[in-house]
Amino acid sequence: MTHLAHTIDRKTFHYKWNRAHKPVLKISDGETVTFDINDVWSWGIKKTSKAEDLTRLDLEKLYPLAGPVYIEGAEPGDALVVEVLDVTFDNFGWTAVVPGFGILDEFQKPYLYKWDLRNKKVAPFENGIKIPLSPFCGVMGVAPDEKGSFNVAPPGKHGGNMDIRYLTKGSTIKIPVWIPGALFSAGDVHAAMGDGEVCLCAIECAGAAKLRFHLDKDARLRGPQYTTPGDKKPKKGYYGTTGISPDLWKAMQESVRNMISYLTKTYDLTAEEAYVLCSVAADVRVHEAVDKPNWLVGTMISRDLFPD
Amino acid sequence: MTHLAHTIDRKTFHYKWNRAHKPVLKISDGETVTFDINDVWSWGIKKTSKAEDLTRLDLEKLYPLAGPVYIEGAEPGDALVVEVLDVTFDNFGWTAVVPGFGILDEFQKPYLYKWDLRNKKVAPFENGIKIPLSPFCGVMGVAPDEKGSFNVAPPGKHGGNMDIRYLTKGSTIKIPVWIPGALFSAGDVHAAMGDGEVCLCAIECAGAAKLRFHLDKDARLRGPQYTTPGDKKPKKGYYGTTGISPDLWKAMQESVRNMISYLTKTYDLTAEEAYVLCSVAADVRVHEAVDKPNWLVGTMISRDLFPD
Repeated sequence: MTHLAHTIDRKTFHYKWNRAHKPVLKISDGETVTFDINDVWSWGIKKTSKAEDLTRLDLEKLYPLAGPVYIEGAEPGDALVVEVLDVTFDNFGWTAVVPGFGILDEFQKPYLYKWDLRNKKVAPFENGIKIPLSPFCGVMGVAPDEKGSFNVAPPGKHGGNMDIRYLTKGSTIKIPVWIPGALFSAGDVHAAMGDGEVCLCAIECAGAAKLRFHLDKDARLRGPQYTTPGDKKPKKGYYGTTGISPDLWKAMQESVRNMISYLTKTYDLTAEEAYVLCSVAADVRVHEAVDKPNWLVGTMISRDLFPD
Repeated sequence: MTHLAHTIDRKTFHYKWNRAHKPVLKISDGETVTFDINDVWSWGIKKTSKAEDLTRLDLEKLYPLAGPVYIEGAEPGDALVVEVLDVTFDNFGWTAVVPGFGILDEFQKPYLYKWDLRNKKVAPFENGIKIPLSPFCGVMGVAPDEKGSFNVAPPGKHGGNMDIRYLTKGSTIKIPVWIPGALFSAGDVHAAMGDGEVCLCAIECAGAAKLRFHLDKDARLRGPQYTTPGDKKPKKGYYGTTGISPDLWKAMQESVRNMISYLTKTYDLTAEEAYVLCSVAADVRVHEAVDKPNWLVGTMISRDLFPD
């Protein structure tokens, strides 16, 4: 049996999740689709943009999603199995700090960092720091069963804006299906991100994802599950900071604050630059959540990013 | 300058953190000490122990620590830099589920798993599953500045029961010093643990740690910081489950529940076995904490553990 390859171009997108969206494509189990994907803020951020422009952006234009795609035979209770065959990205990217978002409340001014992504392996940052690029789609999801229009920002039982940085080429995500045909869409390409995405943004960019679809019939998943090849082991290992608190959220905040403090002191970065660096390249991990009453969260960053 | 090597045997230990403990050894910056370490429950769990014995154990005999060691020249405000030169472990290990502890409240019966650790690379588990061993000290810490006796269980500004699984051979931990001489102790050898230590225990065992000490004068750390070589990349990558909730703790619980459900179904394990497997080998990671109002926590397990 020959499977067709399909493409969805950048003019074909929708905002919001809605089971009433009309599919732009119908495919069968086993078929591959290339999704050409706009950046998360619908071209609102350009090379000429400044931090102040962040306050003027149109929130209704967040998360343009490529799709939706109707998968023949998909039924509620099934899992839609999405193989990530490839993810590519454009030459321009950005990372924003927006007051009221991000895990640290002390960042009270909008801040914008712009990335040159012409080299597809690493992106140059300040002071000789280089970010290894590992692209994935922040959003992969299906339509919910509830009627109406739902914001894309929060992930949920339908997958969606999961921001799982491990969903790079070679990985697979299983997403519970809620309506016949599933209605899958993808969006929000990230050239790189750390576990936690702590300042709000990854390296946000436009790009494309080549995805192959299968059905796991009657899988009855309670939530998305995935396989991933995982990270390369850094040659120079990791630097880690800790946060310790009876509140898991506060422990996470403290570990990131300590990493920002370490990065500003050691690599002569501003606090905003260090916060952005954490968001795109450092990993928030729960080291222990059982040593009552104090939990310990670690923020880990690869030492390969830094010049010798 | 020749540095002496020192050893603290298993008869030399203390319970609790207390700045009034008398040092068992005084060393200089740059010296190495081998700490011979009892298991976390002071030989309370033996090869013949049963789950019911967990309810009869003496809580006062938790966390026997080897030490304390007085480091000449250490002053409040310094960081004690501890290089992990080697960690070894005995041939017997155990992992306990104790109701009221661990992140999942639905485990209401004591459960005890016993490990054969004669092979120092991997420990056999049920159904052909093998756990790669990666030993470290759950506890490395210094005396607090406050007067009195403090339980070892909660980690804090003094380090202590940090349970950072990355502190294996080749890693370094920096711990803030609070009193002159620091009074460093180590304990709680773990042959393997996952990020989170979700059921309460790692593979608990007796063993030894060879540690070298330095001072980072006037470092003024807000909490422990570390370097680590990090993990080997699994040949077969990872399997991940997700938990999604506005509450980071609940998101973590749900991701572990979904992993337990996956493991019981896929590898024919009991729920208790799967919970233990998560605690000793699966990693809890905050994938995103910024997509309001829902955070997404992942629990990831290496697929190399499982038979083909």
